[in-house]
Amino acid sequence: MIIVMKPQAKQESIQRIKNIIESKGLYAHISAGKEVTIIGVVGDKTRLQDQNLEIYEDVDKIVAVTESYKLANRKFHPEPSKIKVGNVVIGGGSLVIMSGPCAVESKEQLLATAHAIKKAGAQILRGGAYKPRTSPYAFQGLEEEGLMYMKAAREETGLPVICEVTSLNAIEAAVKYVDMLQIGARNMQNFYLLKEAGKTGLPVLLKRGLSATIDEWLNASEYIIAEGNPNVVLCERGIRTFETATRNTLDISAVPVIKEKSHLPIIVDPSHATGVRAYVKPLSLSAVAAGADGLMIETHPDPARALSDGAQSLTFEQFEELTRELRPLAALMGKKF
Amino acid sequence: MIIVMKPQAKQESIQRIKNIIESKGLYAHISAGKEVTIIGVVGDKTRLQDQNLEIYEDVDKIVAVTESYKLANRKFHPEPSKIKVGNVVIGGGSLVIMSGPCAVESKEQLLATAHAIKKAGAQILRGGAYKPRTSPYAFQGLEEEGLMYMKAAREETGLPVICEVTSLNAIEAAVKYVDMLQIGARNMQNFYLLKEAGKTGLPVLLKRGLSATIDEWLNASEYIIAEGNPNVVLCERGIRTFETATRNTLDISAVPVIKEKSHLPIIVDPSHATGVRAYVKPLSLSAVAAGADGLMIETHPDPARALSDGAQSLTFEQFEELTRELRPLAALMGKKF
Amino acid sequence: MIIVMKPQAKQESIQRIKNIIESKGLYAHISAGKEVTIIGVVGDKTRLQDQNLEIYEDVDKIVAVTESYKLANRKFHPEPSKIKVGNVVIGGGSLVIMSGPCAVESKEQLLATAHAIKKAGAQILRGGAYKPRTSPYAFQGLEEEGLMYMKAAREETGLPVICEVTSLNAIEAAVKYVDMLQIGARNMQNFYLLKEAGKTGLPVLLKRGLSATIDEWLNASEYIIAEGNPNVVLCERGIRTFETATRNTLDISAVPVIKEKSHLPIIVDPSHATGVRAYVKPLSLSAVAAGADGLMIETHPDPARALSDGAQSLTFEQFEELTRELRPLAALMGKKF
Amino acid sequence: MIIVMKPQAKQESIQRIKNIIESKGLYAHISAGKEVTIIGVVGDKTRLQDQNLEIYEDVDKIVAVTESYKLANRKFHPEPSKIKVGNVVIGGGSLVIMSGPCAVESKEQLLATAHAIKKAGAQILRGGAYKPRTSPYAFQGLEEEGLMYMKAAREETGLPVICEVTSLNAIEAAVKYVDMLQIGARNMQNFYLLKEAGKTGLPVLLKRGLSATIDEWLNASEYIIAEGNPNVVLCERGIRTFETATRNTLDISAVPVIKEKSHLPIIVDPSHATGVRAYVKPLSLSAVAAGADGLMIETHPDPARALSDGAQSLTFEQFEELTRELRPLAALMGKKF
Repeated sequence: MIIVMKPQAKQESIQRIKNIIESKGLYAHISAGKEVTIIGVVGDKTRLQDQNLEIYEDVDKIVAVTESYKLANRKFHPEPSKIKVGNVVIGGGSLVIMSGPCAVESKEQLLATAHAIKKAGAQILRGGAYKPRTSPYAFQGLEEEGLMYMKAAREETGLPVICEVTSLNAIEAAVKYVDMLQIGARNMQNFYLLKEAGKTGLPVLLKRGLSATIDEWLNASEYIIAEGNPNVVLCERGIRTFETATRNTLDISAVPVIKEKSHLPIIVDPSHATGVRAYVKPLSLSAVAAGADGLMIETHPDPARALSDGAQSLTFEQFEELTRELRPLAALMGKKF
Repeated sequence: MIIVMKPQAKQESIQRIKNIIESKGLYAHISAGKEVTIIGVVGDKTRLQDQNLEIYEDVDKIVAVTESYKLANRKFHPEPSKIKVGNVVIGGGSLVIMSGPCAVESKEQLLATAHAIKKAGAQILRGGAYKPRTSPYAFQGLEEEGLMYMKAAREETGLPVICEVTSLNAIEAAVKYVDMLQIGARNMQNFYLLKEAGKTGLPVLLKRGLSATIDEWLNASEYIIAEGNPNVVLCERGIRTFETATRNTLDISAVPVIKEKSHLPIIVDPSHATGVRAYVKPLSLSAVAAGADGLMIETHPDPARALSDGAQSLTFEQFEELTRELRPLAALMGKKF
Repeated sequence: MIIVMKPQAKQESIQRIKNIIESKGLYAHISAGKEVTIIGVVGDKTRLQDQNLEIYEDVDKIVAVTESYKLANRKFHPEPSKIKVGNVVIGGGSLVIMSGPCAVESKEQLLATAHAIKKAGAQILRGGAYKPRTSPYAFQGLEEEGLMYMKAAREETGLPVICEVTSLNAIEAAVKYVDMLQIGARNMQNFYLLKEAGKTGLPVLLKRGLSATIDEWLNASEYIIAEGNPNVVLCERGIRTFETATRNTLDISAVPVIKEKSHLPIIVDPSHATGVRAYVKPLSLSAVAAGADGLMIETHPDPARALSDGAQSLTFEQFEELTRELRPLAALMGKKF
Repeated sequence: MIIVMKPQAKQESIQRIKNIIESKGLYAHISAGKEVTIIGVVGDKTRLQDQNLEIYEDVDKIVAVTESYKLANRKFHPEPSKIKVGNVVIGGGSLVIMSGPCAVESKEQLLATAHAIKKAGAQILRGGAYKPRTSPYAFQGLEEEGLMYMKAAREETGLPVICEVTSLNAIEAAVKYVDMLQIGARNMQNFYLLKEAGKTGLPVLLKRGLSATIDEWLNASEYIIAEGNPNVVLCERGIRTFETATRNTLDISAVPVIKEKSHLPIIVDPSHATGVRAYVKPLSLSAVAAGADGLMIETHPDPARALSDGAQSLTFEQFEELTRELRPLAALMGKKF
């Protein structure tokens, strides 16, 4: 941590900051520059948590030099993590595709989808049973009934299953049925939910919030890991910007940035990022070329009649075409698929 | 709802859309333009919820002409709402100021603050007992102990109290102690929490999400009202933009926009919007001049040692100076204070 | 300037950076922390301009501790600047209102407007003769003919006049007719234009770019001042965000932030910020309450038929009502009007 | 164009709009819905340019159903355009790489770079002679001297050359030396410059503005094409968002969106988009996989000493490694390289 003083800071203002730092058992390293004086803090900065140095006289700003997340930080854990979901490993050199409907609507819909995506090469079945919808008048999900269908689909196809959870209730139900929990974009900073998901020990897919910085996202993952659950996979799904041609703006740079800052695997969801079916294929290819460990792709037997997000869902034929085109690219990128 | 067809749309594509609309008992009004044909849907559009018309052949885009929120919509409820919190009325022609510490730290801290803000003119005491913090290593709040202090402060001062809730657990505790629930920015689209808050019947302060559009915000309020609880007050607290001189960007336009689109009262939180103490006074004045029904201002007996957000908290002297300057402005704007 | 090294940076990497700094005649102040080593640079940092230290081995990041703008910086020029436009002074304790049509359409339109706004209290006449329009098929302005009408309006009313310039050609024409040049949002980083505007010596109104940070804006003003022309007034006119209820998002915080960081006066343009006539009054009041030195307000004799931005233009009656409401507020804020 | 009336709009308000539309020789198609009435305009909408219908009584909003750009619109020009730059064709099935230094610093620097990038497979040499820099105190470019070196480099290597222009002066100089003009992000809406660049007849590389929507970008290209110059290539180079881990956010979705909306070729500049050398390779691969027609990559003989943007420049070895990895990917995507 560095404290930058204002130009012409009084000597007593500098001394005051020095005293506070030293009173916490830390060392204050003072560097008097031509224009400004800066004070470096040496030692465990958490001891300064109950101090708001920026409001002391003559303090210009505080600059953090280390990240606040530790467990998710690659600096302290250089090896990439491999996360097991059932018998599937994410981050271990394979390209892992999660696919399925935005919302579970019926057993028939889900089973048909599970068989189709398995045949096309997907390794994990996704399906929403608790749907966070902007309007209270939109379809909200089948809840536990949907989870039961998920489990049935796993039993029939052998695919591990993942479902979004939106409350402690939903977590308590989901742990009985699914292999991986998903925390959606809108709940990325629902810290209570993160902790509860962490406690289950199940692998957690943590979607990036619509306006979350990468640092906030990694701090959110830290909430899960700090509960003793290191099984976190990140999912980039588009951020909110001024552009309206796509529903969100896929931040493809997040893939190499996460690879540099963290050891956690990262997958990409082009369906939610764009909201437009025609852009799913080019952006899937793009994500794999950028180094993503996997993809999350929405599919539906009849997208025109999907109860949620049909406009971005692929038909089974389109999904099969996508995986066919992904194979040589995955090979080129050194990923098994 | 209007369906815009692509140029040179085939006649059969137009007919297909027409058939779908009519099959739902709605009327399709076709207008063949020079370049494009548009189809207006007449009737109850919710019947089309299970249809994703945008992916049918030759459909260019779907344009919504009515808002999806109804209960919060001024079009159907022209009179401004007045929300009672204890004996205080928000939206009824008074300027209502909620003030207090970001986090409740101790009984002494809270009581000192309660007395100071009451003396300076604040009508409601705020205090955080459940703190959503970006990092899991930051102070997370006193939880139920904090709520008890809030109740004690109300008993001593007569001020109604408001506290943020972040989970069903927190709601269940809070209803025993406080007069108003706050849903924070990070939980604005935690729809489960919105519904549970709605069910309590207590007035709810709904903060705007960091990247929420005004339409999404009003839709979120709709979740609360749809539970039979019309007692919602909105709070603008800054949105996320590229600007970094302030923590967030206060969207002051939200005040007149909400006044036009909704009957719900709106207050402004300049403390969280800027994160900088020096900007709280000018932005408070600015909010009142824009027509806000109230303010939420953070105060602390010793901001330099606050456990949360000290850099944006006012001292009691600064708060008193602020309310002194607000009085003639409130009068000028026709608001009692 | 501070160089933050990576954890476990090799001693030779630290030494390499130290050598580079010292080879430029600067002093490197090394502070070895628990986790990371930081190097402070003492001396004239511009000597390091031809060095990209961030790509040397083991360098984590570079942190600037001083702003790159000097002439616009309040740290080196604590007194607020007063800028003269004809006989009007901006920043000297008066509330200065510039008003007029978005585009000059005819002599009649402009003269009628000039008389009306003068009567209502405006001190400067604005009018666009060179219109930057998103589409090439929209009305592009009367160019020099428009400037002649501006001059005629000044002669008839005595109001100083301001006009946007979009090229060196336009500047060369404008200096013959107007009292103040305007650099529009889209040209805020047209550095060539900034320099040419600076050379004229005329006062310049510099609008903030749609996605410009406050630091970039002040750096842009530096281009003008560095040409020996200190007569710069800043104009906040909304930034681009995800919100679509208003055309742009008025960043009202820019007013106190600029007051703190710079000595230049700042005015606010609520017409362009919102694009909606109904929001102009509340946001004008809001800007004055936040401490703005003036306003820029679009007016038109018949907004419904304006060739540019009619939807945000006030009628003469509306403008008169606005100035009437501004008077007591200006008095309250200690501003003459 | 559709006019959406407010609920309970008076019959006379509807009639008034109808009359205005018909007075322009257009047809008004009225559709009275359950909640609102909408009016479709049939005919040439440009006749309504001098009407601001949104401010008439009872009008809720105006919805555009057709794009304002025509010449760049794929709807009216379904075949993808092929743009010739010297003997290189962009958009014709090859992957075209432009490379070179951010700023031309000396003849030696430029020639060394030209030879190195040619050897590695680049087809066009880029180099900046007029540098738009945020601060007036940063290196501003060699201007015409730099252009002369560009021409010399072309003569020695046969590579066509491209240079950014920032003023009419720069255009007048550049046409004597270079094969393609570049309009930078900061000048994307410098409409005067766009027209002047259009008049030269030279191919123009139009970079996307930092906060430009795709629609505005295509409208900007329309300014060039409307001058009779169809030789426009678009360049996505990152937009401004709240994320700070990268300098800008590369909007990779722009590639498929542009391919759908326009016939113009699109290339991607990962150097400016991220500002970080380590992210250039993954994002280059990503762009090609998304379908980009080419790349613009900054290279420098000694990035640590580059006078501009060294932190994002590749060494010759890094560039060669990049092109080596791009070859099999280009082949997979069906592009010659």
